Amino acid sequence: MSDLIYSAKIPEPALRRLPWYLSYVKLLKSQGETIVSSTQIAKKIDVSASQIAKDLSYVDISGKTRVGYDIDDLINVLESFLGFTNTHTAVVFGVGSLGAALLSDSGLEQFGLKIIAGYDVNPAIVNHAIHHIPVFHSNEFIERNKEMKAEIGVLTVPPGAAQEVSEYMIRGGVKAIWNFTPFRIRVPEGTVLQNTSLYAHLAVMFNRLNG
Amino acid sequence: MSDLIYSAKIPEPALRRLPWYLSYVKLLKSQGETIVSSTQIAKKIDVSASQIAKDLSYVDISGKTRVGYDIDDLINVLESFLGFTNTHTAVVFGVGSLGAALLSDSGLEQFGLKIIAGYDVNPAIVNHAIHHIPVFHSNEFIERNKEMKAEIGVLTVPPGAAQEVSEYMIRGGVKAIWNFTPFRIRVPEGTVLQNTSLYAHLAVMFNRLNG
Repeated sequence: MSDLIYSAKIPEPALRRLPWYLSYVKLLKSQGETIVSSTQIAKKIDVSASQIAKDLSYVDISGKTRVGYDIDDLINVLESFLGFTNTHTAVVFGVGSLGAALLSDSGLEQFGLKIIAGYDVNPAIVNHAIHHIPVFHSNEFIERNKEMKAEIGVLTVPPGAAQEVSEYMIRGGVKAIWNFTPFRIRVPEGTVLQNTSLYAHLAVMFNRLNG
Repeated sequence: MSDLIYSAKIPEPALRRLPWYLSYVKLLKSQGETIVSSTQIAKKIDVSASQIAKDLSYVDISGKTRVGYDIDDLINVLESFLGFTNTHTAVVFGVGSLGAALLSDSGLEQFGLKIIAGYDVNPAIVNHAIHHIPVFHSNEFIERNKEMKAEIGVLTVPPGAAQEVSEYMIRGGVKAIWNFTPFRIRVPEGTVLQNTSLYAHLAVMFNRLNG
């Protein structure tokens, strides 16, 4: 993939759609298909063919007119572009039920996220391992991360500690924070912040169920 | 909360912001505060005071001019409105690493989601329990759900099985699907669909890290 061009300019909505296309073309591959057109993807996914073609123009792949994209090429290019083939190291701060669950989710590693340590203050779990991943005392993070060099911090602490722990992780060298708490943390410019609020999604689902 | 009015008309962006406000006012309560204004919330959260006041107008709470909202009232009303105080029963289809992790996340129950069973086809886990929640063979779902009456189906199967399993869950009585797969499933009108793609969030984070 030496000819791959990473573009920082892809809009976030387009970026978020790429994993849908990847998922679908991987399914087609498993069914023995070798070529796919944007029209064919559009039939299965609620996005127009022209939007799909536009989204795919951000990645370094070209379809042949009236033929389509080579499925193997498309999978390789999308996986590289999305960062799933690189390994990004991460730590999990707050090894409660959700934090421990993420330590146990080996699926994340297949998508490029390798959790190398958990940090917590609870003596019952500090210095134990979960799913072969060590859990250390939070106080040791700055010192340990000089060697371990995790670049992503997964935030699963109680909301009241979210801001303080984020700042601490950034001091320890983390470049991106994946915030699972419902608290709106603030990060300095240059630090990447991704919010994933499972509880907000639950609220939307419950509200629609009642509606 | 007998005077609580559920409004189906709240726009989704407003609905998604409500858990942020709830999280922050719970933090204020833990710090001994009793009253909060929308201006005060706006200082901590990246939303304007007028937007916050508008969002809160969808829930049945009224602030006093130049004083603010009673924090206890606001927490009670938001938790009820968001459905976190009701119990919604759910099943998890696909007890792989993510599915098993969700079965282990007792935090979900505090937000109103009670997982009552897992379903899978893998003989190594069928008829075992994870975190005291039984895992049954997928074939048994329709029969078992006549009694168990789970209303939400959490979808954590491989992407290639996502559409088929969704339809099967709906036949078994599920009214809402929480889709964690990257596959874009389609559901009939009247069925609630909530997509939570951890992998799309990872892709956005990786892309920004490289940018």
